[in-house]
Amino acid sequence: MGRARVRIGITAPGGRITPETAERARATAAGLYPDGRVELVFHPQCFAAHGHFAGDDDLRAAALIETANDPTLDAVWFARGGYGACRVAETVVAGLDEAARSKMWLGYSDAGSMLAALYRAGFAGLAHGPMVQDLCREGGEAAFARALAWLVDRDRSALEPGLRPGQKAATFNITILSQLLGTPLQPDLSDHVLILEEVSEHMYRIDRALFHITSNPDIRRVAGIRLGRCSLIPPNEPDFGQDEEAVARYWCERSGIPWLGRADVGHDVDNRVAPFGTVTPDAT
Amino acid sequence: MGRARVRIGITAPGGRITPETAERARATAAGLYPDGRVELVFHPQCFAAHGHFAGDDDLRAAALIETANDPTLDAVWFARGGYGACRVAETVVAGLDEAARSKMWLGYSDAGSMLAALYRAGFAGLAHGPMVQDLCREGGEAAFARALAWLVDRDRSALEPGLRPGQKAATFNITILSQLLGTPLQPDLSDHVLILEEVSEHMYRIDRALFHITSNPDIRRVAGIRLGRCSLIPPNEPDFGQDEEAVARYWCERSGIPWLGRADVGHDVDNRVAPFGTVTPDAT
Repeated sequence: MGRARVRIGITAPGGRITPETAERARATAAGLYPDGRVELVFHPQCFAAHGHFAGDDDLRAAALIETANDPTLDAVWFARGGYGACRVAETVVAGLDEAARSKMWLGYSDAGSMLAALYRAGFAGLAHGPMVQDLCREGGEAAFARALAWLVDRDRSALEPGLRPGQKAATFNITILSQLLGTPLQPDLSDHVLILEEVSEHMYRIDRALFHITSNPDIRRVAGIRLGRCSLIPPNEPDFGQDEEAVARYWCERSGIPWLGRADVGHDVDNRVAPFGTVTPDAT
Repeated sequence: MGRARVRIGITAPGGRITPETAERARATAAGLYPDGRVELVFHPQCFAAHGHFAGDDDLRAAALIETANDPTLDAVWFARGGYGACRVAETVVAGLDEAARSKMWLGYSDAGSMLAALYRAGFAGLAHGPMVQDLCREGGEAAFARALAWLVDRDRSALEPGLRPGQKAATFNITILSQLLGTPLQPDLSDHVLILEEVSEHMYRIDRALFHITSNPDIRRVAGIRLGRCSLIPPNEPDFGQDEEAVARYWCERSGIPWLGRADVGHDVDNRVAPFGTVTPDAT
């Protein structure tokens, strides 16, 4: 067939996935790429359990370093979010070599802590986008296929449609970014379009986190904010009185950050791929 | 009686209270101080409603400025927490005069955003402690009486018992402090004992917020951390594997911040008064 085999390493820096999910992922990938040129390489750490986490901090860090530094792998794909990447991010970055730097990386939500640390460290192949666990959502095959289309073929149809060539961008979950501010994981987002999304947070928490984010002097250097979907917002008691777009517009206006409209990302099966840094016209 | 009348102004920078709560507070205060020397002055803004808030930002800010700058009032007591102080704190501080600076101030939870901004601005009479709304807790009269004992007589039996004379301290809700970091509200807590408490947050969120707080370079200059109560922690799925003290000890060790043990504060009727700054032996 002439096209190179693509080997994708998978680890879980936060929560675990089940072996059944991995098996389903392998089968789905085989169906999407019947020529067999895509191989999903699940690190056994994905299935480990240590309280909340897919293994303790040492195990999660070691598995990610091993996967990232493996020169026979082309990409690092995060298995899922949950919580835990912030605990290992500094250790991981310190342990990575040039093989890790040349890879593509894909994930979102809690994995954003890891992407932030890597972006700060100058990694170029990073993107926000669907993870393995998204396969378990209703209709999740579309998200799964979109992620692979990006990782395997850099298919531009997977990309968030509002990204502009030559314009730097970075995409984060609102709460995750909030919790990185002022830590050694906070990347320099000057002149970036900052794309934000949220899930399962009350409106008053979204408002508070946007106060936090837009009040940060370094964040105020972004080129603007675009808002992805804020889904599964629990009822506010009393009603908050503003929806997520009104809140985001408010904090943009108050902070002097340009409001740039909505974005096609979120904790759902329609979540698009949004690379960190500059999207170039000839990225395919 | 010979003792001066104490007039306590009350506003609500976050959520509202009901007129019934105010009436009950007045009656309870009258019972506690039958000589009539304590007057609770509720600003009508306490009962206003604007979505989530006790009136819109302009109203909440104006009411607090009016109350704080009123030279006939001796103290500012926050009616309750909820959410909203961070939205008005900068406006309020900019509008305060010397009458505000000479007052005592008392509150906690969301009101911590206001206390932080005031402490940063050099205010000396600030304390974490029970609010009017605590009267509505089961057994809340004890918390209410403790707050008044501090505001009316600077009764040292109201104080958090681990405070040491000459040692600077500051007390915050974990999530509130996290959301202030890097904003214009973040106070300088160098050489302070930092007392933290939490309510209704999952263990993974407490862990994440303590990552955020203890990773902050300015926070790393504190003299140490003491942990108040973390109450009503929702079940973690799966079990987090560590309780709040283990998590706090972990982040202290990792960040090099001295762990100084537990503290008698929290979102409950036992919540003690913890002044910001230095407690002096002759503060009574």
